[in-house]
Order: sequence, then C-alpha cells, then structure tokens
Amino acid sequence: MTALQKFKEIENKITQYNEALGVIYWDLRTGAPRSGMERRSEVIGTLSSEMFKLSTSDELGKVLTELESEDIFATLSDMDQRLVKEARVEYDRSVKIPAEEYKKYVILTSNSENKWEECKGNNDFDGFKPYLEQIIEMQQKFIDYWGVKETRYDTLLDQYEPGMTVAMLDEIFEQLKQKLVPLAQKIAEHQYKPETSFLKNEFDIAAQKEFSLYILKQMGFKFDAGRLDESVHPFATGLNPGDVRITTRYLKDDVTSALFGTIHEGGHAMYEQNIMKELIGTSLCTGTSMGIHESQSRFWENIIGRSRQFWNCNYEKLQTLFPQFKDISVDTFFRGNNVVNPQLIRIEADELTYNLHIIIRYEIEKMIFNEGLKVEDLPKVWNEKYEQYLGVKPQTYSEGVLQDVHWAGGAFGYFPSYSLGNMYAAQILNTLEQEMPDFWNKVEQGQLHEIRDWLIERIYKYGKMRKPNELILNITKEPLNPNYLSQYLTKKYTEIYKLNN
Amino acid sequence: MTALQKFKEIENKITQYNEALGVIYWDLRTGAPRSGMERRSEVIGTLSSEMFKLSTSDELGKVLTELESEDIFATLSDMDQRLVKEARVEYDRSVKIPAEEYKKYVILTSNSENKWEECKGNNDFDGFKPYLEQIIEMQQKFIDYWGVKETRYDTLLDQYEPGMTVAMLDEIFEQLKQKLVPLAQKIAEHQYKPETSFLKNEFDIAAQKEFSLYILKQMGFKFDAGRLDESVHPFATGLNPGDVRITTRYLKDDVTSALFGTIHEGGHAMYEQNIMKELIGTSLCTGTSMGIHESQSRFWENIIGRSRQFWNCNYEKLQTLFPQFKDISVDTFFRGNNVVNPQLIRIEADELTYNLHIIIRYEIEKMIFNEGLKVEDLPKVWNEKYEQYLGVKPQTYSEGVLQDVHWAGGAFGYFPSYSLGNMYAAQILNTLEQEMPDFWNKVEQGQLHEIRDWLIERIYKYGKMRKPNELILNITKEPLNPNYLSQYLTKKYTEIYKLNN
Repeated sequence: MTALQKFKEIENKITQYNEALGVIYWDLRTGAPRSGMERRSEVIGTLSSEMFKLSTSDELGKVLTELESEDIFATLSDMDQRLVKEARVEYDRSVKIPAEEYKKYVILTSNSENKWEECKGNNDFDGFKPYLEQIIEMQQKFIDYWGVKETRYDTLLDQYEPGMTVAMLDEIFEQLKQKLVPLAQKIAEHQYKPETSFLKNEFDIAAQKEFSLYILKQMGFKFDAGRLDESVHPFATGLNPGDVRITTRYLKDDVTSALFGTIHEGGHAMYEQNIMKELIGTSLCTGTSMGIHESQSRFWENIIGRSRQFWNCNYEKLQTLFPQFKDISVDTFFRGNNVVNPQLIRIEADELTYNLHIIIRYEIEKMIFNEGLKVEDLPKVWNEKYEQYLGVKPQTYSEGVLQDVHWAGGAFGYFPSYSLGNMYAAQILNTLEQEMPDFWNKVEQGQLHEIRDWLIERIYKYGKMRKPNELILNITKEPLNPNYLSQYLTKKYTEIYKLNN
Repeated sequence: MTALQKFKEIENKITQYNEALGVIYWDLRTGAPRSGMERRSEVIGTLSSEMFKLSTSDELGKVLTELESEDIFATLSDMDQRLVKEARVEYDRSVKIPAEEYKKYVILTSNSENKWEECKGNNDFDGFKPYLEQIIEMQQKFIDYWGVKETRYDTLLDQYEPGMTVAMLDEIFEQLKQKLVPLAQKIAEHQYKPETSFLKNEFDIAAQKEFSLYILKQMGFKFDAGRLDESVHPFATGLNPGDVRITTRYLKDDVTSALFGTIHEGGHAMYEQNIMKELIGTSLCTGTSMGIHESQSRFWENIIGRSRQFWNCNYEKLQTLFPQFKDISVDTFFRGNNVVNPQLIRIEADELTYNLHIIIRYEIEKMIFNEGLKVEDLPKVWNEKYEQYLGVKPQTYSEGVLQDVHWAGGAFGYFPSYSLGNMYAAQILNTLEQEMPDFWNKVEQGQLHEIRDWLIERIYKYGKMRKPNELILNITKEPLNPNYLSQYLTKKYTEIYKLNN
C-alpha cells in the first residue's frame, strides 16, 4: 500500500467514526430516553477516543510526513494536496492533547451539556458553575498544548475561522459598532413602529410543520438526503452528504419561530448536502469554517426569508394555512417580522441587534481567556454589558448568562462566527445582485433552486477545499468587508422604519 | 491492572460498540434518508469489524484463561464467574471461525437477505437456491469448527437456547402435536364460529397510536427508558437498560395488528428495561435466551393481551377511540380476536396453529443438517408437511418455503424459540396463577404493573445471569413441560369455540 492509500484509509476511518458519533448525537437531541443517556455518554467517550487515537496515531504522522516530502507532494492532485494540508493542521492540533485528557474532556462536555439543560430550566447558575470552571480550565490547558498565538484567545478563534485573529475582529467589530449602534438608536427614537400585535395568536402545529416543509422544498432541500425533526434547540448535522438532518421547534403561540429556524438550519443543511461526492470519507467533506456555514444559514433565513420579495411569494400560502392573517396585508406582515427590538435573548434577536449580542460574548470570552475573568464573575459582567449595549438587564440566569449551550459544550471562540456569517452573507449578496440581476425577481417567483445552484457552484461543492478568506476573495473579488452588512442593514431598516420620511 | 479489570474493560468496550451499532440500526429502520445509506453501511462494516477484533483478540483469550485457573476462579463473585463462563462460550464461538470466513459469511448473508426479498417478491425459488445452498454449506463448516454435539443440528440449537437438545425438542414437540392436532381438528369440525366481520373497517392512525401508548403505560413500559416508533417490520432493541426501543406498524384497515404488535414488542422491551444495573457493560446484560425472550413477548401479547379479562378492562377505551365498535359487545370482540384459522403464513397464525408452523420448520431444519436434505427438495417437503399438519397447500413459493427471512440470514436453529416461548409462557402463567391468586383480577383491573413487578423479580432482573432451564426450574419448580401450553390452549379454545356445548 502506498503512503497515499494508507493516508486515505485512515482518513476514511476517522470520518466513519465521526459519522457514527453524529448519529448518536442527533439521536440524543431528538428524543433519546433520559435513563439511557449516562451510558450513552460512555459510548460516546469510547468512540471519540478511538477516533482520537486514529487522529493522533504515529502511523498517520508518518504517512503525512512522507506525503509532505517535496518530491511526493508535487505529484499529488490539487485535492490530495489540500487534504494533506488540512490533515496536518488537524493532526498537529490533536496530537498535542494527551489521550486521557481528551477522553475526560469529551465526557465532561457531554455531561455538562445535559447539566446545562437542567440548570437553565431551574435558573441554577451555581449548579452549572463547577462544570463551566472545569471546561475553561481544560481549554486553558489545551491552549498551552496547542501553543499561544498572538493572544490566548486567538488560539481558540482559529479553530472555527482559520486565519481570523483578535486584532482583525477587534477592528471589524469596532467598525460594525460604529455603524450599528447609531442605526439602532435612530430606530429607537423614530416615531414610526411597525405593527406586530397580529403575530400574537394561536397557531396550529401541524400547519406550521406543513409550511416549514413547503419552504424547505422551495429552497431545494433534498428530502432523500435529509430529514426534518423536532428538538428543544434546533440544529443541523451533516452525517454524510446523503444524510443531512435538521431540527426545528414549533411554538403554539409563535408561527414564525419554527419557520425562520427551519430556513436557518435548511441553509446549513444545503451546504452539507451539496459537497462534491469526491470528498466523502475525507476531512474536507464539511463546510470550510463556522463563519461561512453561518453565512449560509443567515443568507437563507434573513436575507431571503425575511425579505419583502419572499413574502410576496409565500404569504398567500401562509394565509391559507393560517386564516388568522386573512385581514393582514403582506406589507404589514413583512414589516412586523422585521422589528428591531433590543432584548435579552440572542436567538430571538432581530438582524440588527443580533450582532451586539455576539460582540458581548466575544468581549467576555476574550476576558476569560486573555484576562483571567472568573466564572463566578460572569453573571455580573454579562448583565453590565447587556445594559451598556442593549439597554436591558437580565432578571434571571436563564435569560442571561445561562441562555446559550455553547460554553457548556466547550465552544469558546465560536460566537464570532455568527456575526462573521452576517458579514459574509451581505458581501455575497452584493455579488449575487450584480451577477444575477434578476435575483430579487427569482425570490419573488419562488425560484430559489436557481439561487441554491449558484451557491452550490461558488461555495457548497468545495466543502473545505477552499479556505474562508480564499472563498470570499474568489466570489466577491475582495476580502471580508463589514461595510456590506452595515449598508444592507441601513437600507433594509431605512425602508422598514421609513427613516427617510 | 488485574486480569479481572482487563477482562471487564474489554467486555465493556464490546458492549459499547454493540450499543453504537444498535443506535445506527434503529436509525436505519425508522426513517434514515435513502441517499446516505450506502455510506452508512460502510460505517457499520467498520464498527462491526472493530467489535469482532475485540471479541477474538488474543488479549481476551489470555485474560480468560487466567481467570479460569482454579485458584483465581474460586475467588470471583458469583456474577463474575457467570461472566467468565459466558465470555468463554462466546469467545470460543467467535475465535474458531477464521476471520476471512466470518467476513465472507457476513457479506453472504447480507446479500442473501436482499436476494430473498427480491425472490420472495418474484416467487423465484431457483434464484434464491444458490444463496441458501452456500449459507447451509458455510453453516455446516461452522458446525465442524464449533464441534458437533449430540447431532449436528444440536450445535445450532444451542446458540439460541443454551442447554436445549434435539432429543428434548423431539419429545416436547411430539407431546405438543398429540394434543394440538386433535384440538385444531375438533375446532375445525365444530359448528360454532366466532364472528369477525366487524374487524374489517377503517381505523384512524392517530387513535391507534394513542391506544398503543395507553396500553404500554398500563403494562408498565418505562417511557423514560424507552420509546415507541414506526417501522415496516416491528422490532424491539435494547441499547442499554435505560434505552430500550420498540417499533410498530399502523395499518389503516386493521386496528389490532399494531396493538398486538406493540404489546409483543413491549414484552421484549420490559425484559431488557429491567435487567439489573450491575450487568450494564457486560455480556450478561440481555435476555438469557431467544426462547425466554419470546416467552415474555408472547406472555404479554397472547396470554394477557388476547384474554377476556384484558378486554373487559380496556374495551371501553377502545370504543371511545373507535366508535365503529359501538354496537359490538366485548364478548364478540374478544372471540373475534381469537379465531383459529389454519393457513399458510406463520406470522398471521393464531395462538394454536402457530406451533404447528414452528414444528414444520424444526423438522425441516433437522432434515437439512442431520439427514442431508437438499435445498432443491425443500419446497416438496415443505408443502407435504403443510398439508399433513395444517391441511393447507401453498400454491406459490412466496407463501410457502420463501415466506420467512430467517434462513436467508443464516438463523438455522432459531425457529424453535418461538414455540419454546409459548411453552415457557404457559408454564410461567401456571405458577403465577398459584402464587398470585388474583392474577386475572389484576388483569381485569388494569393492574398490570404488579404482574410486571413479579416478572422483574423472577426473570427480568437476572438478564443472562441464569440459564433458561435454571430460570424455569427456579420459578416453576419443574423443568420445561409442554403440557401447560396444551392445557392453556385447550381451556381457552374450549371456551371461545364453546366446545363443551
């Protein structure tokens, strides 16, 4: 067997373990019986550590070194070269963590996520605190193992958005704040407010489900390569490109929550469903970064799903399913779904203030890892920042520092991806509008498949073959530029709030 | 690490792989998207072969030998001694088959099951014949590897019902035939026939589901340690005692199919849910044999679920959900669900003639392995036996020799478990009626939890700690005795068919 064959065999096996784990995680979040979860965590621990052994094996290190030797590397295909480079990054990241510590970490985060769910339900920060402390302690150790980049937090950031740094984010978020804070203020002070009372009502769950499926079909979600289920916290998971699953949550008193959640996860899913088959069984068979992934969920959810054109197309269908809206015009419905409302919960935030929720988390994570902020001080800092940026103050832990699962899973450095996603999405929209002049017509006609196909060709099919900055440069001919997001939001809310009137 | 610790670590890991595979199989059969299945098969292949490697490792052989040495074995707890004995049986069974042949066999039976489905659909015995011949040839080889017991077929039997022999089964089935054949004949010749026309109707699926859940709850199925889903072929799967899942199939035109199927699988599931926690992570954490497992599904489905007392308790609820039964009395309903109807298909058979279907298969399997019956002669022998025992003659292979999947999967020796299950169940009922004199009152009052609790204490909690014959002797104070089944069936059908009138 050649080094290349051996290398691919190991990569293949790693992705197989990853797929098995993916099925188990999906199962845990979509209705696995509670009493079996403790044992299931141990199964996860064992499979993860087997996968970890493969990912850190001397054998993999050896074939990688062999393949990286100048004379062999030059003979590899473009794909194989990418694969070797990517594998090297992941190998170096994994091999530095002692196997026992890794297993301990996996079990810790799995238990911690279950604990978080319980503690959030009981508003119990003290119950969750020891878990969070342990996770941060282990992450700090991992940073030492991996090596500190410009700052400690840079090391975490780079996992989710390769190439992104604290220095760059500080600047980008600063630019964003300078535009968005005054815009939010202008809106808050403006006299006109869209009507929203009609959104408060009772909505049949079966009809909500039907509408979700209807829109997914319009988007081009492939149902023979995916499924829609329910879970408390909606998510998307790509087991392989032929099996990409999303979940949503139907609320009796809110018709749009499940819908926008479904579109959001559908955007993630369509990315994973359309990665080229050649990448199956390799570490390149996933989205290139969390930021680019979020750009797709947000592009579909916000830019398309919350647009006037989208509702011009789909409002009649909605009215058929929900006669409550019979006397509400599409214009009223569209505006009502785009209200700017600074409040406590990130996942309920509007497109504009959402970025402020992210900036708060980014600043706190930096404080934890770069300045040694203690877990016990988190609620205080959290509440202060919410007052400062959004003018609201949490009354409970559940609506404050306990609201997100991310930290319970150890995903420090992840949050910025959401705002990066918003920025990428707005920048990609700008290119799309130029290259596809009838873009908004297509949305209005429900020809979303054609937009999906454009995204497949520019983004989805490549998986991890192209790095995020490379991808954005290729598509838009310039690096990430936060001005597109501010321009998009300014234009959108100027219309919705009639700011020019 | 001591040999015992090492041994338990390996056992634990094997059960963890088994649990992961269990989740994946459950997922495949309850709605996994088609496009991802090919890749999922590869994942299954990899996990299975990892598990096989563990099960046949030199390391396991070594620690077993060490633990079996007289001075160490004597120091082990009762549970650990059982564990070592059980592990030895399984180790020897696996390690004696050369890995290459095992792999060939796994692929053969997997292809053969697909081929069987196709051939059954096309009534094509010749197409399936070569597969069946190869499977039998390999099984014959395996018997040589494992060692021939009293007869060649004994070696196969012992896999599913440890301790059971051809000599014992011959005698048991002979006794059963002597009682059941005349009883069936008497019923066939009797003038009175229960009414059944009311069972043909249309039945709301949601209401069927509600009734299934209602009955499972009454039985004491733990919903925090299990779930009910749908699949084409109903099954139960114990992932761990805290997560035991069952499936059912709702038919629009048959209200009882899903219900009795649910109760049947519920019986299997309650066995697995109540195995004592100490056995988790060992090979003893499952039912002790296929026969005892079937005794539980059949006890709940037939003895309880098809009893007059059960319907006295639950018929009103059924009538509320299905107003179609408004004018049908509970007596009529009870009799209609207990009609004896000798016909061609095993899985549609009534409680009485079901055993004759099994005896036919048992006799044929013995002929194959002990007397060299050729595959080409199977249809002839099959048809002759159906005429002899049941008075019916298959017109096609599909309704004859091709009807069951078992042989396609290589499960020779499995069929007797079904009748053993019926016999064990009737014998256990006899003890229950003595020890719990108000047993039938409890059924009539819906106090099924108390019956479940009795079964937990006598059977379920032990898992594989007690062998089937040991278990039956402990509970009923005598070895397996087929007369209890004939007595139970005679009494039941004498009442239903008014044979004394």
